[in-house]
Amino acid sequence: MKTASIIIIGNEILSGRTKDTNSNYLAKILVEKGISLEEVRVIPDDISIIEGVVSNESAIKDYVFTSGGIGPTHDDITAEAVASCFHTPLIVRDDAVELLAMNYKNGKKDLNEARLRMARIPVGAKLIKNKISGAPGFIIKNVFVMAGVPQIFEAMVQEIILDIGSANPILSKTLKVFKKESEISDRLWNYANRYKDISIGSYPFNSSGVFGVEIVLRHTDLVLLDKVFNEISRDFSEPNTS
Amino acid sequence: MKTASIIIIGNEILSGRTKDTNSNYLAKILVEKGISLEEVRVIPDDISIIEGVVSNESAIKDYVFTSGGIGPTHDDITAEAVASCFHTPLIVRDDAVELLAMNYKNGKKDLNEARLRMARIPVGAKLIKNKISGAPGFIIKNVFVMAGVPQIFEAMVQEIILDIGSANPILSKTLKVFKKESEISDRLWNYANRYKDISIGSYPFNSSGVFGVEIVLRHTDLVLLDKVFNEISRDFSEPNTS
Repeated sequence: MKTASIIIIGNEILSGRTKDTNSNYLAKILVEKGISLEEVRVIPDDISIIEGVVSNESAIKDYVFTSGGIGPTHDDITAEAVASCFHTPLIVRDDAVELLAMNYKNGKKDLNEARLRMARIPVGAKLIKNKISGAPGFIIKNVFVMAGVPQIFEAMVQEIILDIGSANPILSKTLKVFKKESEISDRLWNYANRYKDISIGSYPFNSSGVFGVEIVLRHTDLVLLDKVFNEISRDFSEPNTS
Repeated sequence: MKTASIIIIGNEILSGRTKDTNSNYLAKILVEKGISLEEVRVIPDDISIIEGVVSNESAIKDYVFTSGGIGPTHDDITAEAVASCFHTPLIVRDDAVELLAMNYKNGKKDLNEARLRMARIPVGAKLIKNKISGAPGFIIKNVFVMAGVPQIFEAMVQEIILDIGSANPILSKTLKVFKKESEISDRLWNYANRYKDISIGSYPFNSSGVFGVEIVLRHTDLVLLDKVFNEISRDFSEPNTS
């Protein structure tokens, strides 16, 4: 199974000012594409930190997705940091300028120095279209550099998602058991040991005073998933007392 | 300024099934306590990954806060991983058993093997009370191990927060400017260069078709903050055209 990391870049997330919703949005899509999300890292607008984290994740994961830091201001330094990771120059590229200009009333005439920063792309990168506001993201090696604004991030994810991952989504089946987690954990442990390939999660819930546990099984193989799900369901089903 | 990391542990976050709200809750409180949150990492229920990340963060930050993986089931392995980080045994501790038992109708008689897992505490750790459901968290060295369920996490944060950080919160002042980000970024850059100690963030907004930028300044020193805020406010204020 292919692996991935998401890197959320921005002081506004670390200060609590802004809630990150991008990682959850992409996490759900990666499941559908059969890609295993191994880590999410939220890091500050600091060029050496961005460079270090992206380099490291790019070396050990199949895909790295970044969010944030590609706007026009002084704290938008993701493009520089990523170019530096791959020892490639960052240049204002004509095709990026064209995409950017389409967003302004007077086209290229409206592109001041700050706006042109958003057309700086590492040499060798492929552009990611931005249907919302023009300024593109880019892909270099296995790193997908996207915007932080959720609406734009989501649009960019839709641009790239068809080309990555596999045809085998990670499937899940959920069993609701109306017992306390500590009453079922021994039996669940046995299943987790017996079927080590399957991810078995247990999530307690309390719905209007009714306590229970949702047991979530995950795997790409539906036949195996059904087999184990049915086995656990039979084990945990209550005798009919009505 | 003291530094911190938050480590969110759980496959359910990485699969997108559950949204992490704990890091945002704690991030806001750390600002009030004058602690600089340097990174949030979301990692899976994998003992060697948890051990590696906690060891690393503990060595380079003043405070490390973990969330998740301290319940009664097979995927609750945070306590083991953290004990292993500090090469200390994990034992069922009497004071933890007392706290846990208070949550059950028949007290200690109701504590089966699975429930007793929640009273396993690394030797030398200090307990964190859990007002919601009994099972305690713990503090070992600079690592604060807390529950993943938001209501319990938040209650545990309230137990520990008085004893950490400083009396000097990180203060912020926000200026709303009704211009596009790319029109003000040059001037903003000059301020960021001139006042390197102050964190200056710029966040575009679009409120019912009205575009603008929120400029957020952050520092612990209110006098300095006011000075720079007033300077930027004057610079960005529009001439009165009414």
